[in-house]
Amino acid sequence: MGNIPDSHPRKASLLSRQRIVDATKDGFLADSAMIAHGRGEAFDYLLGEKTSDSAKLAIKEVAARLIAAKKPVISVNGNTVVLAGKNIIRVAAVLNCPIEVNIYYRTEDRMEKLNSFLEKQKELLSQENSPEGWKGDWSSAVMSVKILGKVGDGRIEGLDGPRSVCSAEGIERADVILVPLEDGDRCEALVNLGKQVLVVDLNPLSRTAKMATVTIVDEISRAAELLLEYTIKNDQMPTKWNNNGILNEALEIIAKNSRTI
Amino acid sequence: MGNIPDSHPRKASLLSRQRIVDATKDGFLADSAMIAHGRGEAFDYLLGEKTSDSAKLAIKEVAARLIAAKKPVISVNGNTVVLAGKNIIRVAAVLNCPIEVNIYYRTEDRMEKLNSFLEKQKELLSQENSPEGWKGDWSSAVMSVKILGKVGDGRIEGLDGPRSVCSAEGIERADVILVPLEDGDRCEALVNLGKQVLVVDLNPLSRTAKMATVTIVDEISRAAELLLEYTIKNDQMPTKWNNNGILNEALEIIAKNSRTI
Repeated sequence: MGNIPDSHPRKASLLSRQRIVDATKDGFLADSAMIAHGRGEAFDYLLGEKTSDSAKLAIKEVAARLIAAKKPVISVNGNTVVLAGKNIIRVAAVLNCPIEVNIYYRTEDRMEKLNSFLEKQKELLSQENSPEGWKGDWSSAVMSVKILGKVGDGRIEGLDGPRSVCSAEGIERADVILVPLEDGDRCEALVNLGKQVLVVDLNPLSRTAKMATVTIVDEISRAAELLLEYTIKNDQMPTKWNNNGILNEALEIIAKNSRTI
Repeated sequence: MGNIPDSHPRKASLLSRQRIVDATKDGFLADSAMIAHGRGEAFDYLLGEKTSDSAKLAIKEVAARLIAAKKPVISVNGNTVVLAGKNIIRVAAVLNCPIEVNIYYRTEDRMEKLNSFLEKQKELLSQENSPEGWKGDWSSAVMSVKILGKVGDGRIEGLDGPRSVCSAEGIERADVILVPLEDGDRCEALVNLGKQVLVVDLNPLSRTAKMATVTIVDEISRAAELLLEYTIKNDQMPTKWNNNGILNEALEIIAKNSRTI
């Protein structure tokens, strides 16, 4: 890929793409991860590759619901770890909530790789200055984030086979789940269990986007950065949320951008 | 992936995806091929995964221009070969025109693989019944399709490095080039050389789509099937073509589909 100048208008997108290509080579991701990323790229392109005002509202709502939750968990797959792992750990540190590695095509090798990667990232992040606005012992907040998922001792009722496997301490008992880049079936099953399912999905037409309690229609690394900011700020309670309204606003942006060549 | 029932509304899309995943594993495609495919999937999804009336007009125009050309060539990359190789060879047989393997990230290994694959496909296709409506010796028409590209003895003026390499007998001397899934820079360079550049691109906002002489906004395997039909039918002359108009129609479809959840 070579060096991309800072002035390149699509630099962030090209760097994310390279991260996904590299992580695939390193065995972190399933075959289809690059295809999923490409789909995301196209939707982000149509969204103007920036966080919309309505996506910001959704991120604020997600922050509020995670803070208000009794047993929150952040479920991550390979693409999320690669694109936004650091900020997801920071958010989990602020919320004092566990992260569960939960991947669609579960193999021991990938579970192990993603798990170790997150543990190493925790060590790195525990050395950094605490994020702006955060008060407390950052190092110990980061190090106390539990990385779950290796032990698949829980089940998601309503699903069969490997996709039903989860952590008893994580997704199984959680009341509120932030699960970026989720599959439609699993999103539906989690909603049917009465859990609040908060997702990040660039396709406002996807089944996941439509099924979720709150849908952030935004690119995961941008969304995670703002989520960290809003989680620290903590100045809002959960609202009565109109998720269809937010999806319609995203679709309006795509429709508008499609008319302006 | 398992067996996808015939009734699955997205069966064709899922099979194409699997073909790209398999071909990547087999070393036919560059790293970024899956990401490009995913981007295409997203646009095709927004286009309703069907060939629009305006795309049909573009395919007819492309057929007419290839038939009227003095030195036509069909330039193919890895994704095109994997998704539509057979019908591209059939079209080349009908037109009596060469195919040039020309890939963005040129490596000897991939060039060799794609070349041999097409030669083997030619042998297979030479045994089949001639396509409906075609008269003549199908076997010899298919076997006489030249597969160019291994010898990079031509240059595309206006480009530097490996991307400028082409076949002297193919792209360099061609007056009309059908080049599905092309890169924007190369499309621009070919147009600047005064050649007619006919492209297939699912993103009506891409630089390639905007630069080309005629843009087919459609999925390559669907487009290639219709192109074969129209090339055999041969009932139209090239027209004065309004490519911006056709792009606007594709964007209207995306905008409309974005408003109908």
